[in-house]
Amino acid sequence: MSQPLVLHPDRLFPADAATRAVARQLYALVERLPIVSPHGHTDPRWFAENEAFPDPATLLVKPDHYIFRMLYSQGVKLEELGLTRRDRGPVETDPRKIWRRFAEHYHLFAGTPTRLWLDHVFATLFNIDQRLSASTADRAYDVIAEKLASPEFRPRALFERFNIDVIATTESPLDALASHAALRTSGWKGRIVTTYRPDPVVDPDFAGFADNLRQFGELTGCDTGTYAGYLEAHRIRRAFFRAHGATATDHGHPTALTADLAGREASALYDRVKHGQASAADAELFRAQMLTEMAAMSLADGMVMQIHSGAMRNHNPLIYNTFGRDMGADMPTRTDYVHALKPLLDRFGNEASLTIILFTLDETVYARELAPLAGHYPALRLGPPWWFHDSVEGMTRFRQQAIETAGFANTVGFNDDTRAYLSIPARHDVARRVDCATLAQMVTTHRMEEDEAARLVVALAGSMAKAAYRL
Amino acid sequence: MSQPLVLHPDRLFPADAATRAVARQLYALVERLPIVSPHGHTDPRWFAENEAFPDPATLLVKPDHYIFRMLYSQGVKLEELGLTRRDRGPVETDPRKIWRRFAEHYHLFAGTPTRLWLDHVFATLFNIDQRLSASTADRAYDVIAEKLASPEFRPRALFERFNIDVIATTESPLDALASHAALRTSGWKGRIVTTYRPDPVVDPDFAGFADNLRQFGELTGCDTGTYAGYLEAHRIRRAFFRAHGATATDHGHPTALTADLAGREASALYDRVKHGQASAADAELFRAQMLTEMAAMSLADGMVMQIHSGAMRNHNPLIYNTFGRDMGADMPTRTDYVHALKPLLDRFGNEASLTIILFTLDETVYARELAPLAGHYPALRLGPPWWFHDSVEGMTRFRQQAIETAGFANTVGFNDDTRAYLSIPARHDVARRVDCATLAQMVTTHRMEEDEAARLVVALAGSMAKAAYRL
Amino acid sequence: MSQPLVLHPDRLFPADAATRAVARQLYALVERLPIVSPHGHTDPRWFAENEAFPDPATLLVKPDHYIFRMLYSQGVKLEELGLTRRDRGPVETDPRKIWRRFAEHYHLFAGTPTRLWLDHVFATLFNIDQRLSASTADRAYDVIAEKLASPEFRPRALFERFNIDVIATTESPLDALASHAALRTSGWKGRIVTTYRPDPVVDPDFAGFADNLRQFGELTGCDTGTYAGYLEAHRIRRAFFRAHGATATDHGHPTALTADLAGREASALYDRVKHGQASAADAELFRAQMLTEMAAMSLADGMVMQIHSGAMRNHNPLIYNTFGRDMGADMPTRTDYVHALKPLLDRFGNEASLTIILFTLDETVYARELAPLAGHYPALRLGPPWWFHDSVEGMTRFRQQAIETAGFANTVGFNDDTRAYLSIPARHDVARRVDCATLAQMVTTHRMEEDEAARLVVALAGSMAKAAYRL
Repeated sequence: MSQPLVLHPDRLFPADAATRAVARQLYALVERLPIVSPHGHTDPRWFAENEAFPDPATLLVKPDHYIFRMLYSQGVKLEELGLTRRDRGPVETDPRKIWRRFAEHYHLFAGTPTRLWLDHVFATLFNIDQRLSASTADRAYDVIAEKLASPEFRPRALFERFNIDVIATTESPLDALASHAALRTSGWKGRIVTTYRPDPVVDPDFAGFADNLRQFGELTGCDTGTYAGYLEAHRIRRAFFRAHGATATDHGHPTALTADLAGREASALYDRVKHGQASAADAELFRAQMLTEMAAMSLADGMVMQIHSGAMRNHNPLIYNTFGRDMGADMPTRTDYVHALKPLLDRFGNEASLTIILFTLDETVYARELAPLAGHYPALRLGPPWWFHDSVEGMTRFRQQAIETAGFANTVGFNDDTRAYLSIPARHDVARRVDCATLAQMVTTHRMEEDEAARLVVALAGSMAKAAYRL
Repeated sequence: MSQPLVLHPDRLFPADAATRAVARQLYALVERLPIVSPHGHTDPRWFAENEAFPDPATLLVKPDHYIFRMLYSQGVKLEELGLTRRDRGPVETDPRKIWRRFAEHYHLFAGTPTRLWLDHVFATLFNIDQRLSASTADRAYDVIAEKLASPEFRPRALFERFNIDVIATTESPLDALASHAALRTSGWKGRIVTTYRPDPVVDPDFAGFADNLRQFGELTGCDTGTYAGYLEAHRIRRAFFRAHGATATDHGHPTALTADLAGREASALYDRVKHGQASAADAELFRAQMLTEMAAMSLADGMVMQIHSGAMRNHNPLIYNTFGRDMGADMPTRTDYVHALKPLLDRFGNEASLTIILFTLDETVYARELAPLAGHYPALRLGPPWWFHDSVEGMTRFRQQAIETAGFANTVGFNDDTRAYLSIPARHDVARRVDCATLAQMVTTHRMEEDEAARLVVALAGSMAKAAYRL
Repeated sequence: MSQPLVLHPDRLFPADAATRAVARQLYALVERLPIVSPHGHTDPRWFAENEAFPDPATLLVKPDHYIFRMLYSQGVKLEELGLTRRDRGPVETDPRKIWRRFAEHYHLFAGTPTRLWLDHVFATLFNIDQRLSASTADRAYDVIAEKLASPEFRPRALFERFNIDVIATTESPLDALASHAALRTSGWKGRIVTTYRPDPVVDPDFAGFADNLRQFGELTGCDTGTYAGYLEAHRIRRAFFRAHGATATDHGHPTALTADLAGREASALYDRVKHGQASAADAELFRAQMLTEMAAMSLADGMVMQIHSGAMRNHNPLIYNTFGRDMGADMPTRTDYVHALKPLLDRFGNEASLTIILFTLDETVYARELAPLAGHYPALRLGPPWWFHDSVEGMTRFRQQAIETAGFANTVGFNDDTRAYLSIPARHDVARRVDCATLAQMVTTHRMEEDEAARLVVALAGSMAKAAYRL
């Protein structure tokens, strides 16, 4: 038996009638504002080539780690969801079967952000009015598949329909940025910018690091056998990224450790790690040193720096060996910022022209470390709740724990941080609704006046991100 | 002057009228459901012998560490509460005096779970309508004492009155399980099962460890002088426990550390610890290794594994030396899970037929570690808030911090985890009310539909625990 | 364009009408109660000399680290706010210009406690009815400046207007307490007591430590070249402080580490640190040992001991080198209590006649460590949320996370802990309102009856602090 799918107009607003009324008024100010997406993982080829998306399972299920980690935790094999094995062993290839398996387990998402995002996608993009379940799976599949084949669902048409002002993708320094280049000359007006994410040539533990350095040298004409040449390669490549719209860099490190070694020490460290056989301590120190080097380059070239730290990647060796990276088996870890960032901050923390945006997977640092740091250092801003914490309760905790010390002005609005393109409006809508709820509660408890809440909710919905990311 | 004692029918439901109405509807579905108690510390002799309980102080005050730790913190000596000194030194022996001392301090429990549990006991079991205080102490004592002497208050009668479906006790591998055996042949229909808690023969720091190993060998006919014989003794004893109803094991370790040593290393480690003179590091490593060995045995025999980690036992040496273990002086500590569990998970985390239920005293890991782990590994589930966190606010935090990432399906419903038999209905009632409140808020903020909340609240009230514990 | 400044009579009360009604009733009981301020940093000279306060910028902006850290984080130079450089380099000296700069940035404080405190000051003391902004800056300046020059705004007149029962200041052992002595003989009835804060002679990392020890010896006639003489100097100086009203000591340590060394070891340690050239480990161990020595002295002389641990001081070397200590660049760090306090507690934790009040900058310890410790050890009490956590959300979290385990009786009411004298009524008002809100929610969710909430809200507003601090 199927249940109706209803997107309630007051969803995520506080139940209290007076507070809900304020939340509604605030939401009316932001509901239709353009989307600013300064950090994410959509594929620039989508926009450059503007081909139709594939079937519903391949588009919505197979690439979504929130979905397949939940099903896996409840005993569904990743092979049954059609995920590609490294050994090319047999996996499910029928997208309808994959979709049915997902639909049968859709009840598992009750109370999770995935449910909020997907119901929004189903209702607003596909006019589906039945909750997904085993009994509604086929009908939903057919409706979605038909629409995905239509011109209105091509990437560029959706970009316009979604009212996206600007979207940033994320690329390796080794990426030729061909799609971005094609977009620039295509005549299409959609604004897609890249982001410089140098982990493949910064993290000695990255697969193929030594080979990456060799390519890095070839691409830039620099001698990456020396530290000076290696740094120069970064400068050249950053300029190339800026020419393709980049205003920011991004750094995904296991910890937030930074270092500020003397030149000779840094060179010697590079000599030890460049062959990809660094000790764990050397690898960590090199990543630390590179955060400070990147900050120095950001001060020079104006790129905003994002630090996403605290993920222990590939926690599950069976999954890693069978399926590879990014398969839902990354785990957050306890992360220090106050000590870890000190070397970088000692050198650059007082630079008001530098912007470093900090992200965390360890919520215990919101009130204890991140808000006090960002509420003091001119160079620091706080990124929104990230990954597992990009949820209604997670975003609420961030506001409750960070704002009283950091203020709103030291935060940067919302990031969707996703490759799930169709869900981008849903994610921004959830974030805007949570902001409305939070600000409405501040208004009805008389911690803030309505005019201030109105100013802030609009800023949080986009202009703050544009300003912080210099877009 | 005394105050009335009132159990409000809406207690613990949100104040907002619309949300309260939903909470009431949900509560109507679960209020009278049978109690499933898959983990606790009641004494099986109570049920086997079915004798009357002793006086009010001996039943309700002296064994309750929540009560005597609070009174002790405010300057009441444990001797004044009649707790037995190891040296058999003088302590209060008049139960009425102990009861009065407790009653005089009852105001200390305002805002604590103990107050909620005891008021429920007083009102529902003893029809007491005055709040406990110095002025009402004697009357309450008399009423309770009289009822406790009546047939309706014998353990089995209460078991039926409480509508308990099944209750699990917890025993040492060295326990002969005589009461459980007697219950099996008694003809009484109450379902009492044991749980295999091997700490006395697994933890080298346990008092009498070397002697425990000797007994363990005698009881099983195994040579516990060798690691192989020691492991075989576990297998034999686990089978004996299963024959007495056990479906689960339980492991109370200071940390969640696990290890997966090669056979020779594990044997050599056992040789070092078996005499009870292990170094701290060896003791920790042995406990770690044994969690993995227990998981291996669980995979073979189907027993669910519970890990209760993070308590630093016997923090107060004066109390330990004078009164012994479990005297309210155990303290939670910061606990890591992501790194600590990796050796065990590397080997068994992907086994969908294995169930390991994780508990913590460190709430900071709910969102950061436990929910991401349980939301990925098929073998993992999250136990409910434990010990100090088994409270209204504590249970609310668990739901707010764990569900968005783990989903409800990776949790296991409620444990009362108590030896305070009379309070078991109160504890389940508090948990059910908190679940109703939490789900009602999800409904009125339109994160969930009413039919889903209804399904979940019933599952959380019992069926989820039965399924998870294979009862 | 300016906006009205309105102090809503229901501010900080829950939005739900039923709960708000209870909060109002509770607030009526405490709104006008005298202020008890057992820990703070007002200057005793103000009261001894009773001179007019300086201009608005010098009184309200320049000494307030909450204000200047926020402006600094947004790119305002500390020189522009008139803060004194160590090198006496040029800074802004026109108080009106400083005030305008502050007023232009007042919107940054939306959602912060600073905003709540200052609006209360502006509205209640100066009858300002326009929100501070660039356009209202001059008018506000003029109004405040005029009033500050009037007799009604002298320190003693304000003390009476604020209805302060007692206020504690905080002094170094090297302070002659001249103002306190003058106050005692002045005939004025205001009760101002000192507090013994021995960090300058206890912390080997304190600037001028060796010289401080020399002065400490001179002041007391003790030979501070020996450990015995050094300890005796403390005893003498503590007695001197008690004679000036002190009932408490205060200890601002980077961590909560305690030690209980044998006499010979402690002496040897003192020999290593007394010249101010201790290793980091020796400095930490000496601070740890001194907490235990101070507890021993408190047991003897009855002084209440406060431990404020967890701040990493002077995180920003540029700010420290340019402007010195206490310039908004101190950062909280993760802090352990369960292990750190054990040596001290092993010796004195069971002493019911000793009171040690614990404070933290690491909220993760409220539920995990502090509440379980204070809910057991007779010597321990929990101080209110401190520094960055002395905010609406911060105080709410403390109640939600500590009370269920520690009970109200193991807490000590409110501390304003401030040098911002004019804001003291605002700070107590915020704390009282948060207590009313918290207790009202316990009443409307039927976790507590109204008579109990009424008793507790009055105790929390003052009598609990007076009792705990033995004032």
